[in-house]
Amino acid sequence: MLPLHINVTDKKVLIVGGGKIATRRLQTFLNEGATIRVVSPEASKEIEELAETGVIQWEQKEITIEDLNSASIIIAATNHPEINEWIAEKASEHQLVNVVSSAEKGNLTIPKFVTKGRLTFSVSTNGASPLLAKQICEQIGNQFDEEFISELNRMYEERQNKKRNF
Amino acid sequence: MLPLHINVTDKKVLIVGGGKIATRRLQTFLNEGATIRVVSPEASKEIEELAETGVIQWEQKEITIEDLNSASIIIAATNHPEINEWIAEKASEHQLVNVVSSAEKGNLTIPKFVTKGRLTFSVSTNGASPLLAKQICEQIGNQFDEEFISELNRMYEERQNKKRNF
Repeated sequence: MLPLHINVTDKKVLIVGGGKIATRRLQTFLNEGATIRVVSPEASKEIEELAETGVIQWEQKEITIEDLNSASIIIAATNHPEINEWIAEKASEHQLVNVVSSAEKGNLTIPKFVTKGRLTFSVSTNGASPLLAKQICEQIGNQFDEEFISELNRMYEERQNKKRNF
Repeated sequence: MLPLHINVTDKKVLIVGGGKIATRRLQTFLNEGATIRVVSPEASKEIEELAETGVIQWEQKEITIEDLNSASIIIAATNHPEINEWIAEKASEHQLVNVVSSAEKGNLTIPKFVTKGRLTFSVSTNGASPLLAKQICEQIGNQFDEEFISELNRMYEERQNKKRNF
């Protein structure tokens, strides 16, 4: 697994499933401006509300192969591992698929991460302990104070000015 | 930018350009088992040698629009920012493009990262200072000793056994 930072703004993200993990993943991508479609016979209250207000699209039905076509990123988060794995098998080679029931069946995992101003870092234990990854992430986050984050902003502005004057 | 961990094994990666940065990016993806094609009139010695031994494919020519088609990931790393930006514009919506001359023109950046056993973490300052990102990454890496990494391995095995016995 290679850590990459991806701009998912306006990227089509398909969430299959409507439970807790599906909802958490949805929020991660929604926060980054992705265009989200949920396919699931049932869904959490959050998903229901987001769909009602038109922030996301929710199709209340079982997943079919046609649903997979247009998404750049697919989160296979149903309660049925065999359905999740079927999604990973049927996805095209350009698509990124996160299989929540068994990460190694997909080609995408979502690490724990912290964003503080311009600083972003991610931690993954590659399946050893998501809880520990979260704790490590928080601990590392605490090592960077407001002053450091402001300094990063200043460095960024300076670098942009240099580029413009080049 | 959302930090995601992606399995690039056998993914088609197109490197446009053959200089220092192109070579460094190439090595990152090659280490992870990607299938690499370089398109560039000129290339570094490393690229030349890798192409000669058949580890990668190198087409000694200028980039054309047809070259972009089949890649899942494109690294636009020529010395000409306008060519790099043209690549980002012409890429399809499913493709991930890293524009080395101006990261914000692409939808993919490659953060500094460290892998120690099952632990992977990445650091990006989102354009403020790649050098500082590298230093932070090394500092954080030093906080985890061999014992911790072994413990992570043990936790992983335990978790896999639980899954199997479920």
